[in-house]
Amino acid sequence: MSFMGKPLLYSYWRSSCAWRVRIALNLKEIPYEIKPISLVKAGGEQHFNEFRDVNPMEQVPALQIDGHTLVESLNIMHYLEETRPQRPLMPQDVHKRAKVREICEVIASGIQPLQNLTVLIYVGEDKKKEWAQHWINRGLRAVEKLLSSSAGKYCVGDEITLADCCLVPQVFNARRFQVDLRPFPITLRIDRELENHPAFRAAHPSCQPDCPPEVGK
Amino acid sequence: MSFMGKPLLYSYWRSSCAWRVRIALNLKEIPYEIKPISLVKAGGEQHFNEFRDVNPMEQVPALQIDGHTLVESLNIMHYLEETRPQRPLMPQDVHKRAKVREICEVIASGIQPLQNLTVLIYVGEDKKKEWAQHWINRGLRAVEKLLSSSAGKYCVGDEITLADCCLVPQVFNARRFQVDLRPFPITLRIDRELENHPAFRAAHPSCQPDCPPEVGK
Repeated sequence: MSFMGKPLLYSYWRSSCAWRVRIALNLKEIPYEIKPISLVKAGGEQHFNEFRDVNPMEQVPALQIDGHTLVESLNIMHYLEETRPQRPLMPQDVHKRAKVREICEVIASGIQPLQNLTVLIYVGEDKKKEWAQHWINRGLRAVEKLLSSSAGKYCVGDEITLADCCLVPQVFNARRFQVDLRPFPITLRIDRELENHPAFRAAHPSCQPDCPPEVGK
Repeated sequence: MSFMGKPLLYSYWRSSCAWRVRIALNLKEIPYEIKPISLVKAGGEQHFNEFRDVNPMEQVPALQIDGHTLVESLNIMHYLEETRPQRPLMPQDVHKRAKVREICEVIASGIQPLQNLTVLIYVGEDKKKEWAQHWINRGLRAVEKLLSSSAGKYCVGDEITLADCCLVPQVFNARRFQVDLRPFPITLRIDRELENHPAFRAAHPSCQPDCPPEVGK
């Protein structure tokens, strides 16, 4: 537990999974501290013994909260939802809840794991861009199809949900790998809708304490 | 919706994700019908236009239930939990709930997506075994570590949860790719505990209507 009992988030500025959790914490107005874990320094601090004890998957995020350490971003967000019901990020209606989880899972199981840093290192430098584009394209096609029946102003209806917390960081990753986003107009519209929302903006990689000065703005 | 209003599960005998849902349906004693989708016939029926309308990710499972079509196995299981609270598969305690979700997510986001059929086809025949073993080993190391602080008779305490629904099919996949499971004694113990449970047994690939006769027993 960190000073003053604030939750402590193990984070990396560019990690899309840590970013999801930062958005959820901000939306719920939960004050937290950040412990940066560099995924690139010295082969990756996430592989150090100290951090392996925090998260055996050797990934960010992890969140120390309420005397416990939580891992896996969707789990952390659902825990926040269950223990801090203010500003709910899940709808009440069971069918809308399912829609939110579908979009979250397509991104968290169907896209991100195939284009994260660890996998791309294993794929190799010369193939990694094509590899990432292939899986991001496949996943965003599915997300766009799901959004065509669920989206209002945001991913599911007109309230911000966990699905939006997952969508925006994934769109950022898609741009990073130069995926052509024009076939995904609903995705793009929602991303534009949210890019200047204060909770999303404060969670953006460029606003993180560990963002290299030459990248931040 | 299928005949008599029973839920209809789009399933493939060997899909570990469909298997998770079969276990959950069986544990909750929800009668259902199976619509087999062959992932291998004619390049994979999951890629056919008719099925793409069911699941834009072109994967099993999908579940038609209560007039809706649900995709993504964890989402389906949570929907069952929210709408059919009998024989709960999630603990009441928020910290135990988090443990269940952690194990589910490590398997569903951290292992299975990297060793599923679509990805292995893309990786290529000559590399696929080493690839699958690498990611399954990494993930099961993390699962074993999580289980060391959560397991009782089953993954989290002494009641069967969604984590167990995910663990058993993943252990089956590990064996299929000849992963040495001896470093994972808690995982193995829980798998042995559950292998003859009627709900798990009935959901086993070898007991599915679309299991090829030369495989089933």
